[in-house]
Amino acid sequence: MAEALTLVPNNTLITASAEEGRQLAVKMARLIMKATQPDQAVREKLRPVYAEDPALLIQLGQNVALEFATIAAANNYWRR
Amino acid sequence: MAEALTLVPNNTLITASAEEGRQLAVKMARLIMKATQPDQAVREKLRPVYAEDPALLIQLGQNVALEFATIAAANNYWRR
Amino acid sequence: MAEALTLVPNNTLITASAEEGRQLAVKMARLIMKATQPDQAVREKLRPVYAEDPALLIQLGQNVALEFATIAAANNYWRR
Amino acid sequence: MAEALTLVPNNTLITASAEEGRQLAVKMARLIMKATQPDQAVREKLRPVYAEDPALLIQLGQNVALEFATIAAANNYWRR
Amino acid sequence: MAEALTLVPNNTLITASAEEGRQLAVKMARLIMKATQPDQAVREKLRPVYAEDPALLIQLGQNVALEFATIAAANNYWRR
Amino acid sequence: MAEALTLVPNNTLITASAEEGRQLAVKMARLIMKATQPDQAVREKLRPVYAEDPALLIQLGQNVALEFATIAAANNYWRR
Repeated sequence: MAEALTLVPNNTLITASAEEGRQLAVKMARLIMKATQPDQAVREKLRPVYAEDPALLIQLGQNVALEFATIAAANNYWRR
Repeated sequence: MAEALTLVPNNTLITASAEEGRQLAVKMARLIMKATQPDQAVREKLRPVYAEDPALLIQLGQNVALEFATIAAANNYWRR
Repeated sequence: MAEALTLVPNNTLITASAEEGRQLAVKMARLIMKATQPDQAVREKLRPVYAEDPALLIQLGQNVALEFATIAAANNYWRR
Repeated sequence: MAEALTLVPNNTLITASAEEGRQLAVKMARLIMKATQPDQAVREKLRPVYAEDPALLIQLGQNVALEFATIAAANNYWRR
Repeated sequence: MAEALTLVPNNTLITASAEEGRQLAVKMARLIMKATQPDQAVREKLRPVYAEDPALLIQLGQNVALEFATIAAANNYWRR
Repeated sequence: MAEALTLVPNNTLITASAEEGRQLAVKMARLIMKATQPDQAVREKLRPVYAEDPALLIQLGQNVALEFATIAAANNYWRR
């Protein structure tokens, strides 16, 4: 793993809104895959595989859901 | 991913009822798949695949369950 | 998805007992699959597939466990 | 599903100890599978399949872990 | 399942440290598999299967993560 | 499993920042796999398998997400 890669953008889970929290969840899910497979050429070869495979699309969605659960709790669910 | 796509409708996890919270969970689970596969033609080709595959139907249900757990907590479970 | 389908029976996660909460978890897990595959004929064709496939039986059990975790929290675990 | 089947033994998540809580988790995970596949003859045919398949053994363990998380929270983790 | 098998060593989730909590998570994940497959000869045949299969190694790690989440909460995360 | 292997680096879940917490999640997810497969030669043979398999990359990301959820809760989400 490329140790220098940032895994949590801006080093915080706090976001201004639920929408931004969801975007952070997507980014964090991607950054972990980038850390495990740092070779961009390989990642670009893999991307169309999961983007056209319904099982992988669903599993990727599950990772985002799990990251989002943590981010949402961190932000007290952006309750006003 | 199409960055312009809204991932959290109305930018809030707060809903008026458990039923609406569940609908939001379904929408959020779908929007993540839309974000990963923005090509509508491909998504329409994939839909019948998972709608007729029991394993994928179950996995999709799991994603909704995970999204709903977060939404329900955000709404204090709609306790009256 | 058939938007008219009720996803949360009685529009509440609150139940009188743990047993009823568990039954609600089963129903909610099923209703999501019904929403994704509204065609009853297809669902009836799929049912024996997962009822006789140990991997799918286990995965279905996982969905119920996840739904139940949310319902149990909503009910403060039916502590007396 | 056999609606008459009890899904939560004794209709409570509260147990006297962590060990009993874990046993309840095992029972609840099994009862869901029993509810989905009420035919005992089929279940007995499936049992050796997952008992000798490492992937299924692990997945079954995951269901127990999920049920146990809920039961442990219900019991305030049996802290003394 | 061998009902006499202890599923929670020492009948408590409380441990002196995070490291011991993690070891407990590993043990609890294993004991569930032992309970489902009590035949030691079969388990010893299965062990090299999942120890050399990356998918099973990852899934086993997921079970430990889930058990650990419960144990860590029980111990208030060993905060000092 | 090599009992002497440290499973929680520094024996604490508390980290100075979200970024360090995420790095700890990655390490803890790896250490469990190392504990299950202590033979470094085998692990090095398995690594390219999951680094080039999109399903395994996603599953590995899920393990990190689960470990991170626990670590983030332990740190009160690094709220300032």
